[in-house]
Amino acid sequence: VKVGLIGSGWMGAFHAESIARRVPGAILAAIADPNVESAQALAQSLGTGKVTADAADILADPEIDAVVIASPARFHSALITQAAAAGKHVFCEKPAGQGLDELDAALAAVEKAGVHFQIGFNRRYADDFQAAKKDLAAGVAGQPQLLRSLTRDPGTGSIPNAARVPAWTVFLETLIHDFDTLNWFNEGAEPVEVYAVADALVEPELRDQGFLDTAVVTIRYSNGAIAVAEANFSALYGYDIRGEVFGSKGMVQAGRATETAARRYTAEGLSADTPRLNVELFRQAYTDELADFAATVRAQRDGTPPPSGAFSLTPGAADARRALAMALACIESVKQGGPVAVAAAPVALRDDARAGV
Amino acid sequence: VKVGLIGSGWMGAFHAESIARRVPGAILAAIADPNVESAQALAQSLGTGKVTADAADILADPEIDAVVIASPARFHSALITQAAAAGKHVFCEKPAGQGLDELDAALAAVEKAGVHFQIGFNRRYADDFQAAKKDLAAGVAGQPQLLRSLTRDPGTGSIPNAARVPAWTVFLETLIHDFDTLNWFNEGAEPVEVYAVADALVEPELRDQGFLDTAVVTIRYSNGAIAVAEANFSALYGYDIRGEVFGSKGMVQAGRATETAARRYTAEGLSADTPRLNVELFRQAYTDELADFAATVRAQRDGTPPPSGAFSLTPGAADARRALAMALACIESVKQGGPVAVAAAPVALRDDARAGV
Amino acid sequence: VKVGLIGSGWMGAFHAESIARRVPGAILAAIADPNVESAQALAQSLGTGKVTADAADILADPEIDAVVIASPARFHSALITQAAAAGKHVFCEKPAGQGLDELDAALAAVEKAGVHFQIGFNRRYADDFQAAKKDLAAGVAGQPQLLRSLTRDPGTGSIPNAARVPAWTVFLETLIHDFDTLNWFNEGAEPVEVYAVADALVEPELRDQGFLDTAVVTIRYSNGAIAVAEANFSALYGYDIRGEVFGSKGMVQAGRATETAARRYTAEGLSADTPRLNVELFRQAYTDELADFAATVRAQRDGTPPPSGAFSLTPGAADARRALAMALACIESVKQGGPVAVAAAPVALRDDARAGV
Amino acid sequence: VKVGLIGSGWMGAFHAESIARRVPGAILAAIADPNVESAQALAQSLGTGKVTADAADILADPEIDAVVIASPARFHSALITQAAAAGKHVFCEKPAGQGLDELDAALAAVEKAGVHFQIGFNRRYADDFQAAKKDLAAGVAGQPQLLRSLTRDPGTGSIPNAARVPAWTVFLETLIHDFDTLNWFNEGAEPVEVYAVADALVEPELRDQGFLDTAVVTIRYSNGAIAVAEANFSALYGYDIRGEVFGSKGMVQAGRATETAARRYTAEGLSADTPRLNVELFRQAYTDELADFAATVRAQRDGTPPPSGAFSLTPGAADARRALAMALACIESVKQGGPVAVAAAPVALRDDARAGV
Repeated sequence: VKVGLIGSGWMGAFHAESIARRVPGAILAAIADPNVESAQALAQSLGTGKVTADAADILADPEIDAVVIASPARFHSALITQAAAAGKHVFCEKPAGQGLDELDAALAAVEKAGVHFQIGFNRRYADDFQAAKKDLAAGVAGQPQLLRSLTRDPGTGSIPNAARVPAWTVFLETLIHDFDTLNWFNEGAEPVEVYAVADALVEPELRDQGFLDTAVVTIRYSNGAIAVAEANFSALYGYDIRGEVFGSKGMVQAGRATETAARRYTAEGLSADTPRLNVELFRQAYTDELADFAATVRAQRDGTPPPSGAFSLTPGAADARRALAMALACIESVKQGGPVAVAAAPVALRDDARAGV
Repeated sequence: VKVGLIGSGWMGAFHAESIARRVPGAILAAIADPNVESAQALAQSLGTGKVTADAADILADPEIDAVVIASPARFHSALITQAAAAGKHVFCEKPAGQGLDELDAALAAVEKAGVHFQIGFNRRYADDFQAAKKDLAAGVAGQPQLLRSLTRDPGTGSIPNAARVPAWTVFLETLIHDFDTLNWFNEGAEPVEVYAVADALVEPELRDQGFLDTAVVTIRYSNGAIAVAEANFSALYGYDIRGEVFGSKGMVQAGRATETAARRYTAEGLSADTPRLNVELFRQAYTDELADFAATVRAQRDGTPPPSGAFSLTPGAADARRALAMALACIESVKQGGPVAVAAAPVALRDDARAGV
Repeated sequence: VKVGLIGSGWMGAFHAESIARRVPGAILAAIADPNVESAQALAQSLGTGKVTADAADILADPEIDAVVIASPARFHSALITQAAAAGKHVFCEKPAGQGLDELDAALAAVEKAGVHFQIGFNRRYADDFQAAKKDLAAGVAGQPQLLRSLTRDPGTGSIPNAARVPAWTVFLETLIHDFDTLNWFNEGAEPVEVYAVADALVEPELRDQGFLDTAVVTIRYSNGAIAVAEANFSALYGYDIRGEVFGSKGMVQAGRATETAARRYTAEGLSADTPRLNVELFRQAYTDELADFAATVRAQRDGTPPPSGAFSLTPGAADARRALAMALACIESVKQGGPVAVAAAPVALRDDARAGV
Repeated sequence: VKVGLIGSGWMGAFHAESIARRVPGAILAAIADPNVESAQALAQSLGTGKVTADAADILADPEIDAVVIASPARFHSALITQAAAAGKHVFCEKPAGQGLDELDAALAAVEKAGVHFQIGFNRRYADDFQAAKKDLAAGVAGQPQLLRSLTRDPGTGSIPNAARVPAWTVFLETLIHDFDTLNWFNEGAEPVEVYAVADALVEPELRDQGFLDTAVVTIRYSNGAIAVAEANFSALYGYDIRGEVFGSKGMVQAGRATETAARRYTAEGLSADTPRLNVELFRQAYTDELADFAATVRAQRDGTPPPSGAFSLTPGAADARRALAMALACIESVKQGGPVAVAAAPVALRDDARAGV
């Protein structure tokens, strides 16, 4: 499967490396980035030839089967729309858009073109989150009643360039992961209402400019389950990602407390290293989401059966839409200071989402 | 220290046993319960002579130094008031009252009488919660930003006599523990606002009668910290009590996942027993809270210095008041469907609370 | 049950406190110690009247039901013999003797007198070791094949008064606990042969004087199981006691890595406090072994049924003898530099041991 | 780097897949196996063309830089000798030989040819074992005093084809991993003496034919440290690999108890999945050892600096020799029923070993 990468920033470069080196059967065919020099450096280090400043060159290339969109979020919906129109299969980093209108248009284009669409909710591919999902699918926790998902990004106690972080990032870029985890763990239910509290606790002097680095969201689901999503931008102990589902029969938990299973015992007591970087904690997950994408694209291209599993795995159009609707409802909740309903998805998307893989 | 027990139900009987057998220097001098037969059976099993149907007999007994109030919650405030008026030191099970007016009157009586008052927030005495508090007092987590406390009572998936459980029990009797844990962990800050979501998920057919078995509460504190308290009445895996504080320097956690440190590995994988009963999980804590009470009463009676610690421990009048105010605000929040301010405590109580031990 | 304590050193004083304060139904009736002043101070602090320099006074006291022997090990066998002859029930700290001849004589006296005998193998009463034993009794691990028990005493990297520590202490006083744990975990099998390696690694300059602070013992059992016992006198991280049984169906493990369930996460990673003192780690176990002793003595005295359990618990005469025989074989193994057979117990003892409680 | 694979059995096939798909910069150039059909099937599935029945074809191919030897152990030494003579860099599965004479000859050929030699002690590349080693290199545990390494292979309680398992496999193929782990963890010390106990506990009816499925080895090191290595062929709970070093300053541990960080809590208590297969538990380690090999070969071929690390990592000639000498001493120990000295390595090898990478 020949893949064109659009956007070669931090995540784009990591995806490029995954495609070039770690995803069986995938070829990194081209890189598009307005910053051509950076893209060229990346291409060279990976032994890939083609570089362009314009994503349109990739979309126009008939050799290319699929694109990985890793540009800034404000371009995502438009790029999805264009890629679908060009007949390319699409893997898009989260969020798939910044508004429901633009996203619905993009997803309509995807549906019309019949291309495969996957969104970068990589946590689904982490081994412990998959194990938890497998247990949930098997009914280990019974009917979900209480859920929790949290993201704490690694930090040093202050946020570099905080003033340049776009407003509402905590919902649109960070908690959107947790929303998807909760939706996936509570499969079959729809998020109905959110109540969001957010503040600038890491960088309080930026509070007046609307900067938010900490948030807690309560979510009510159509099946009665109550969920909490929580985020903070600066955990001194590293990258802390956890999920928990409590239900009528028990509880399942995911989340890795330490970098490895090694432990040390000294005069100070027990200690162990904690995970520090998303690309360390989720290295396997980042590879596996792209491997899933490549395998599905190949199957669709070749008319062979898609990869299958014992539980739903691949995050698609309805998942992208559902999580974005929650993030947008959170923004509204913060503005209003009270609970806000989550916008229902178009019927087609909702059905699609429940079909599973 | 001679102690009179008022109320010999489930917790009363357990406290009786602790006083008679496990608390050094405490003597179980008398038991008052309208159900005299039950009280007599208890007294006999513990080798204690005096039993009465009327708590007034205990309050009138000049030999008795202190009372432990373990009657139903609706009598608590009145009993505190009477005991204080009789010059007895008071240990009262939570909640100390069911309304702020009655509680404020009771606490005023306590203050006027100069007796010692302690409330049964036993989690403070659990070894892991104390270790977490010690770390927090030492600044290990820095300035608190996100807190969590949860209670999941052991159950079987249905609640016996659910129809007879008083309304709002989930807030007044269950989450009140979590509110105190959060307040204690976030010492120096006041709870400002709560948003509560509650439902009947274990016994959905009782929802229409106002029964609530599941709740999630978001709390905003005066120092900006955001906390979540969560409760459910029926965890099939046992008694699940946890606390977590995340702050500017790190995180501390309390909560015991397994009954003991033993582990088994079989063809099915790793497994271990989970804690099943509060009187098992917190046996030491229940003993230690009464030992602290007895030691403080003795010190006050004898004019000797009170037991001291490196961190605030004994939950007193202001703690009882603060947690109740939060529970009442939660009830209001559920009724209104939005966030509600927490009633501020009288100035005297607030000051007292921050003096620590 | 009235108990006389013989020996008021470190463990004796702790046992005194347990009897006086924590064991239901036990009364600390008298303390005997040649160091009368120390005994008096202890008695006073516990509110116990009677103190004597001579253990014979206790044995002659008709009011006293039972003795707890906590004197130096070289007096144990003789005191057991005398106490049994005086009709006292006996709880003796380990080891019950320093040679098989003296111990066999003592145990014969116990048998002749018909008194209850218990030895201070307190680990059997630790909650995690009991949970593991319960699993083993239920067949969770199947037929034992590989066992491990270890003791690492807390230390600072050097051993105070090492020059005055009696020779072979590592086997007679320390590993004897592990031998009992292994025997108990491998119930029904006899230790057949040991191979011991020992050295002075903490205090190497004392090696030439015969001091040993580190040892590893391999044990072959009659059922084919192979066990390893390991000891060291100076663990900087505290008191480390673990047990493990691997068998045809799985594995069970006991041993507590941390002081409490609390955890902290900081810029340095995950950390937690480790257990530091035997009287902290095993506080409950030390209380429970004496409570078991008192309850059994009371039952025997009053002709009532003894406390019972789902698995063998109380360590008795055969257990004391079996563990000592292993320690003595280890000493011989070190001297010879090769494997040594474990001396078989007299038939009566062996039968007794397998009767369980 | 072009790699020829010699032997396409279970491990050979896995290595083939690693080279073809997961090791950056490595090319699987050819496969040699007397079972040509099996080799062809493997080559086809990986998209590799060249297959031969005769390893000599690979050694004669000037295009091939290096070989991976994964044939049965009895051919290893001879193949190393031939490969070195042909100027090929060598990665050899353990053991590198079955006798010291043949191995010393092979390693002399390696030295003479100046080719790179690496042995398949893959545990060094597991993330937790590396973390432990890093801590040991930093002095976290101080001077080693007690070490433990264990291997328990996954099983079902009986061993398929046990009668065809070569004698002494438990030492030569299984415990040889643990010997290397112990040597690596106790770097700078030489194994001086071993005492081995072994038995057929899984398949007792094969005991008389010399079959051994369970073994415990005590090792004395030149620095006084005492180590225990333990193996069993049939753990019903899966693949259990652990290491522990206790020293003058503390302890480090490696070993992963569960397959992922996910946990479930149900009416039966806590449970989690355990690792089941070496190629699952050590997937990353198997890839990384070959990546290290390929990178070193490339560096040596191109005259560029080799990959470096903060601690010794790559297992080489002296490591292969030292572990084999221990395994052979164990066999002798079982035969003699007593401790046996470990054969010292030729001076050149010993020096080389301590040079690190």
